[in-house]
Amino acid sequence: MPIITLTTDFGQKDPSTGAVKGAILSELDAVTIVDISHQVSPFHTTEAAYIIQNAYNSFPKGTIHIIGVDSEITPENKHIALALDGHFFICANNGIMSMIASEIKPEKIVEINIHDAVETNFPVLDIFVKVACHIARGGTLEVIGKTIPQIKQLKEFEPFINQDQNQLVGHIMYIDNYGNVVTNVSKKLFENIGKGRDFTITARSVSFSKIHDSYSDAINFDAPKEKREEDGKKLAIFNASNYIELAIYKSNPRTVGSAASLFGLKLMDSITIKFT
Amino acid sequence: MPIITLTTDFGQKDPSTGAVKGAILSELDAVTIVDISHQVSPFHTTEAAYIIQNAYNSFPKGTIHIIGVDSEITPENKHIALALDGHFFICANNGIMSMIASEIKPEKIVEINIHDAVETNFPVLDIFVKVACHIARGGTLEVIGKTIPQIKQLKEFEPFINQDQNQLVGHIMYIDNYGNVVTNVSKKLFENIGKGRDFTITARSVSFSKIHDSYSDAINFDAPKEKREEDGKKLAIFNASNYIELAIYKSNPRTVGSAASLFGLKLMDSITIKFT
Amino acid sequence: MPIITLTTDFGQKDPSTGAVKGAILSELDAVTIVDISHQVSPFHTTEAAYIIQNAYNSFPKGTIHIIGVDSEITPENKHIALALDGHFFICANNGIMSMIASEIKPEKIVEINIHDAVETNFPVLDIFVKVACHIARGGTLEVIGKTIPQIKQLKEFEPFINQDQNQLVGHIMYIDNYGNVVTNVSKKLFENIGKGRDFTITARSVSFSKIHDSYSDAINFDAPKEKREEDGKKLAIFNASNYIELAIYKSNPRTVGSAASLFGLKLMDSITIKFT
Repeated sequence: MPIITLTTDFGQKDPSTGAVKGAILSELDAVTIVDISHQVSPFHTTEAAYIIQNAYNSFPKGTIHIIGVDSEITPENKHIALALDGHFFICANNGIMSMIASEIKPEKIVEINIHDAVETNFPVLDIFVKVACHIARGGTLEVIGKTIPQIKQLKEFEPFINQDQNQLVGHIMYIDNYGNVVTNVSKKLFENIGKGRDFTITARSVSFSKIHDSYSDAINFDAPKEKREEDGKKLAIFNASNYIELAIYKSNPRTVGSAASLFGLKLMDSITIKFT
Repeated sequence: MPIITLTTDFGQKDPSTGAVKGAILSELDAVTIVDISHQVSPFHTTEAAYIIQNAYNSFPKGTIHIIGVDSEITPENKHIALALDGHFFICANNGIMSMIASEIKPEKIVEINIHDAVETNFPVLDIFVKVACHIARGGTLEVIGKTIPQIKQLKEFEPFINQDQNQLVGHIMYIDNYGNVVTNVSKKLFENIGKGRDFTITARSVSFSKIHDSYSDAINFDAPKEKREEDGKKLAIFNASNYIELAIYKSNPRTVGSAASLFGLKLMDSITIKFT
Repeated sequence: MPIITLTTDFGQKDPSTGAVKGAILSELDAVTIVDISHQVSPFHTTEAAYIIQNAYNSFPKGTIHIIGVDSEITPENKHIALALDGHFFICANNGIMSMIASEIKPEKIVEINIHDAVETNFPVLDIFVKVACHIARGGTLEVIGKTIPQIKQLKEFEPFINQDQNQLVGHIMYIDNYGNVVTNVSKKLFENIGKGRDFTITARSVSFSKIHDSYSDAINFDAPKEKREEDGKKLAIFNASNYIELAIYKSNPRTVGSAASLFGLKLMDSITIKFT
């Protein structure tokens, strides 16, 4: 049974998501539709890029991922379909896929050209669903588009490294449901540059000199519970996606606050790592 | 495989939605359950009407739609099931279906009368699920209710037209995830009354003299990017549901603001269209 | 087809939920995955307990319930799997299951011990999914854990009863989507202690001397509509889960206010019932 996932900025109130699912079910008798997220901030391509990057590859090979963020077609924002890492992606060519594609070379990229027959101001419904169902039925990308050599790049994903290779400047690329802030510095990059040296991570007024492998790794469970300083404990970890994340142990953004609120950090704020 | 959709004001935190899905899966071995929306504002029948109207007909014929908004049974709020446009709808007789039914005559309407055997304060779980599963198994409406000739009307859907046929007063009936405001003036009505004349749409202090066919249609892509005035550009379009919508190009209600916040427009605010 | 439900505090924006579903679909060809809730307040075990208790048993016997709240493994927070009431539950041993287990004795409890082979800071993805799929394929609990005699108890579920058996002190354990406040006093306990006596329920400055069986039961539909005092009417009912709930008739927390906001009640606030 083919699997089609949805990642959009439609929210969960509007009829859009329901309409898209209905259209898929009208074309395919047997299909599994999975919501990845409909809460991408409106038109926020970097958020969408982070979310799809960290969800897609737990799905089976052959899964078809529709990304409906900033997807209206314009002279500068064409629609594309990609085969990459054994998965299929359908989205606008607005940089969303450049985060994944910077690490894994796409097997094929086509610019979708079935539009001549379709006039629409709801391209996810009228174009992306058609392309997804075509792929789900075993159709090839060549039938629905013409091959192009590469996709648009989003530059903001790249951390900056100084010439002496002892300083790395990244930024906050995502704030999660717990208010923890995810940087764009991957474990791989950190280790390649750091080479085991001591380091200090600084973001506004907080700093860290250790990166944990898990949240609870920061807590000393040998100490009796009342002496443990769990509450509000700040820590840096390599998160489940292997990026450096600045966190508060068991935070709740709606009550006691979170890393984002307590450290005063926002999306795109910079973080600096100095190796010594 | 039968398809059952859910449109409710249950929100997405409470156990209600899960319980309803469990009850359906307990009755039917093979069924596809699709969430249309659980974020209808509590008891807001017009929002529910707009959402179901704009999602239902992308589903295949034969789909069963449960609408769980203001569904507690009272002497004035009976439960009904409808066959309409090849689809089935189960809801309270509180006007929710009058928006769809004003355009497409129901094939059959029954007032559900299986209640004598059921005492409940969760009718969606205890009544609507039973009716939906009955229909999914191929059962007829006559078995679960008695035919009635018509449903309750919600008056607020109708725009007002003056005698000279040169002025049309509608209102805001929905505010979407991007903060764009959707009026109750359909493209069809607009064209029937306007007959190609010039016009001005006014809502509070904003006005428009052109309606675009898509968001990007309002942007001049021949101009270089820095001269384009995309940001915050206001526009009127016929939206994906073919209603007049007042929008801000690429708005984000949580950051830069939206049509609703920037124009100061709320649900039920009126808009006026003058033809000249 | 096996059914796996998800109850987490992941929210609906992050990639976590999508990743978990992808992992399940990678292991099982045919499976129905149902979201119960991803909006549990971060690390809030009592909310999770209430939600799972009131959703699980409408599902068919044999359903597998994953509860991903406060699930990081620590020396004090082991992972468990339970067979209870014909269902399976997979969660951390942090008290979440004690609300259900206080009423229905688990048939089997195991402490999961497949961790030696898995290093993870995303245990729902890396441990719970594996255990769920093992059970879905017909595997036994003994294969993935060692039997333990009992689970950790959450004390806060128990209302207090005075020696004279004429006073009962409970608290608010959940606030629902309509802002109605659910107490931890069950209909069964209320009737066992009250034995039909008159009573007064007091919470802050509001009090009630009657408990309705449904919301509309509080409205006199014989009176003409304009004299009915529906708006803002306060009432106590036995809710769909058979707990005492303090409510406002047709409230909307985002506009006119709700029981929680109008009565000034918060989670864990106490309520007192005096029998006379």
